[in-house]
Amino acid sequence: MTRNRQWRIARRPNGPVREEDFKWTEGPIPSPAEGQFLVQNLWLSLDPTQILGLAYDGPEPGGIPLGGVMQGLALSRVLESRHPGFVAGDVVYGGSGWEDFSVGDGIGFQNTERVPPGTPPPMALGVLGITGMAAYFGVTALGRPTPGETFVLSGAAGGVGSIAGQIARILGARTVGIAGGAEKCDWLARVARLDGVIDHRSEDVSARLSELCPDGIDVYFDNVGGPLLDEALGRLRLQGRVVVCGGTSRYGAAAPAPGPKNYLNLCLVRGRMEGLLARDYADRFPEARATLRQWIAEGSLTPREDIAHGLANAPRSLLRLFSGENVGKQVLEIDAPPSP
Amino acid sequence: MTRNRQWRIARRPNGPVREEDFKWTEGPIPSPAEGQFLVQNLWLSLDPTQILGLAYDGPEPGGIPLGGVMQGLALSRVLESRHPGFVAGDVVYGGSGWEDFSVGDGIGFQNTERVPPGTPPPMALGVLGITGMAAYFGVTALGRPTPGETFVLSGAAGGVGSIAGQIARILGARTVGIAGGAEKCDWLARVARLDGVIDHRSEDVSARLSELCPDGIDVYFDNVGGPLLDEALGRLRLQGRVVVCGGTSRYGAAAPAPGPKNYLNLCLVRGRMEGLLARDYADRFPEARATLRQWIAEGSLTPREDIAHGLANAPRSLLRLFSGENVGKQVLEIDAPPSP
Repeated sequence: MTRNRQWRIARRPNGPVREEDFKWTEGPIPSPAEGQFLVQNLWLSLDPTQILGLAYDGPEPGGIPLGGVMQGLALSRVLESRHPGFVAGDVVYGGSGWEDFSVGDGIGFQNTERVPPGTPPPMALGVLGITGMAAYFGVTALGRPTPGETFVLSGAAGGVGSIAGQIARILGARTVGIAGGAEKCDWLARVARLDGVIDHRSEDVSARLSELCPDGIDVYFDNVGGPLLDEALGRLRLQGRVVVCGGTSRYGAAAPAPGPKNYLNLCLVRGRMEGLLARDYADRFPEARATLRQWIAEGSLTPREDIAHGLANAPRSLLRLFSGENVGKQVLEIDAPPSP
Repeated sequence: MTRNRQWRIARRPNGPVREEDFKWTEGPIPSPAEGQFLVQNLWLSLDPTQILGLAYDGPEPGGIPLGGVMQGLALSRVLESRHPGFVAGDVVYGGSGWEDFSVGDGIGFQNTERVPPGTPPPMALGVLGITGMAAYFGVTALGRPTPGETFVLSGAAGGVGSIAGQIARILGARTVGIAGGAEKCDWLARVARLDGVIDHRSEDVSARLSELCPDGIDVYFDNVGGPLLDEALGRLRLQGRVVVCGGTSRYGAAAPAPGPKNYLNLCLVRGRMEGLLARDYADRFPEARATLRQWIAEGSLTPREDIAHGLANAPRSLLRLFSGENVGKQVLEIDAPPSP
């Protein structure tokens, strides 16, 4: 009979996360208790913050015990339900595991919700998922660029960044995206249609920022942290805003890397640096999704996904986020489990 | 005849500011042109941010050319006026110089305003001056502690801190002040009546914070920067706020010291770190001054000033802010200029 393939936490990463931090196991298919449902996971969402639960203690929900199944967002199909909110056949999005079959109760580090029929899975996990919500609320609720303001973002071709830059452009900001490599920069210029693009692998970021933002930065949308954040803080204009969406340069560090030494500039320019957690805006997700769908339908927003295949490749796909290989939202389509 | 004694910038500090960065000169008394007025400076306000104009390039107004007269806030008497807004005999507060006599036009890095008769000069420069305004708006507009929230501040016995902690206490917060030395801590506990006091010279700040703030920090009012800021960021509660009022630990550094490595916690707790510049709230200064005077009259707020004497001691008095010698707002009463 069919078995449940699973990726478990083999050890806490010491420094950058590695494939060896996970171990592949197989086990029985779980049964839902009263109030639970059984799903088959179909697609996984790969997100940089997933390694926080893997690596750190902290206030973030979703910390995973050593030996436990790796947690993450997934698109899944309900196979059997003893939960009043779901029926067999529902396609759902929410917190799940890196495994073929999971049981859930609908409330996890990310509540489970039904996905409207016809939604392409990569979009359900990307632009219409928590990734798109982070981009939408990071830009519209925290960064709030006004027309003509200069909006700079790091990780511009990543999951959140590839959407956030376009939203800022739609709102009328002058957008400058920082990304690594020619493919990403080309996509940002041609498809995402940002006003300026900086390739941090081949260009002098500081010099290019001076060139593209001679009057400074009004909004810095940060997915990366590190020296780029300092560059941005040093150039922040009066009442400038820094949206702290993520810090991929830091998640894998053995010891916390130095923080932004220019933070005191917040004082001189009366700036604000604010952390974003998209799920704070859960009651406004329907509004955000409707707006994003509208922008996509009009052709002003073009989502980009990077699709991997096969549950066996889940750890490797997560690592791509930190090596900067992914262009757009990294997702993984799970292959059907073998039934001998 | 009487001469104008002046402190000028002898050199840009390289590292911590020193007395040798200033030079004492004497010159003629200036004459006001049309639209200007001549003042005799009576009291100087010593403020940590004064050394920014002395030491750094940057967006802060009031950068001083090498060889120029040191700038600072002062309480002065108008001797002669060719300005429609002031008459001889007015006592005024505003941007001026470290010298006996200055000419001004009322608009400087701090606009000149008339001081109500009967205001004690140390209060005009302290709790009712820009120092008090920074405390008032830093707490009420940015930090916004609600009753029962935990409010922690560094530099708690300094100019701004000695007022800010008391305001937070008046608003109903649980207040914990960090300061250096027994005299300051004793004043904070007995006179300022903070709920908890930590002496960073003799106590383990981290252990004491764990003890006094077991559930974390809602508002951190930062006058210092450095490792204390990291301690606070690491303990920030959900939707916690960091008010960046100053960074005395950094102003004198030769190279910018490392920034707060725990800044990414802003993201996990949806925190906000915001820079304060009191003069942004200039239109609300009258309201703030009325409230502060009321609190003083009721006995709920006790300002504290540290008074030096003699223009010759101005550089030395500024240095006290960085060695942590001052308790409360540092001011200096200028001695009468010699008239041979």
